[in-house]
Amino acid sequence: MSDDTPLLAGLQHLLQTRRTAALGTLTNRGLPYVSLVPFAIAPRLESVIIHISELAAHTRYLMQRPDASLLLNQGEQDGQIVHDLPRATIQAHATQLIPGDKDWEHARNAYVARFPDSEFMTSFKDFHFFSLSIVRVRHIAGFGSAHSIAPEKVRQLLASSPWPQTDS
Amino acid sequence: MSDDTPLLAGLQHLLQTRRTAALGTLTNRGLPYVSLVPFAIAPRLESVIIHISELAAHTRYLMQRPDASLLLNQGEQDGQIVHDLPRATIQAHATQLIPGDKDWEHARNAYVARFPDSEFMTSFKDFHFFSLSIVRVRHIAGFGSAHSIAPEKVRQLLASSPWPQTDS
Repeated sequence: MSDDTPLLAGLQHLLQTRRTAALGTLTNRGLPYVSLVPFAIAPRLESVIIHISELAAHTRYLMQRPDASLLLNQGEQDGQIVHDLPRATIQAHATQLIPGDKDWEHARNAYVARFPDSEFMTSFKDFHFFSLSIVRVRHIAGFGSAHSIAPEKVRQLLASSPWPQTDS
Repeated sequence: MSDDTPLLAGLQHLLQTRRTAALGTLTNRGLPYVSLVPFAIAPRLESVIIHISELAAHTRYLMQRPDASLLLNQGEQDGQIVHDLPRATIQAHATQLIPGDKDWEHARNAYVARFPDSEFMTSFKDFHFFSLSIVRVRHIAGFGSAHSIAPEKVRQLLASSPWPQTDS
């Protein structure tokens, strides 16, 4: 047990229950750009996996600049206030995976396990898997409750957890 | 009627039904940083309003660099695929409003109308209202359906719509 335990449990809950995240990238002019991405976890890579198309701006931005940010947050609930929704911001470094490599296969398997309906897209030439490795994590559990979590602990979490295998 | 009409209707729906957005800012080192913000609409300013604390990193970042990005997206639904969720990315310029000014009063009223539970926070010295003016808007209505919307049309929309007045 450490002081990080409840924060890690909160982050694990977000990673397990959410299927999409808000991805922050940098435009050609170095401006922030936020888009929606479905994500999966690749335990062996200790990273978050996204599968994105060259037709989308965020993919071109990541190919030029690997600096990324990922927001995971609990969804809004009707009739409940939104100011204290549990959420986490992950600062990450993106690596484009190479089709056929072991890391690509592992990422693909993790992604398809979570999103079986997307399997047909994994053979598209203009779609790419990116592995987002953890640089820094900030977790906010409610009002006045912002804490950093050590990146190595988050990597351990990504490596060890049983992750949801279905798209439902 | 123009070709933008369905896109604007989709954006209006997101602005009306969502209470939070993912805010992209730039860190001191020029890296992307994504965080969660409740938002309201200020019709007279034709802008999106956020109310954020100096204790939060995104507030300090915006004070240094006014470049922002805002993602609005329909929420995940259990059992439904997430790859075609309607969503919009707004590139914006942030202006910190000055307490007591007419624009500040207007923004405060719009924010409190949407989030009455937050009224007590609007007098906190370390909280600030920022007005996010529209620079560029990209709307994605589903697979392969990404379109830009002319910023002036989005400003007209913000100026004209009846916006939800309650936090529920």
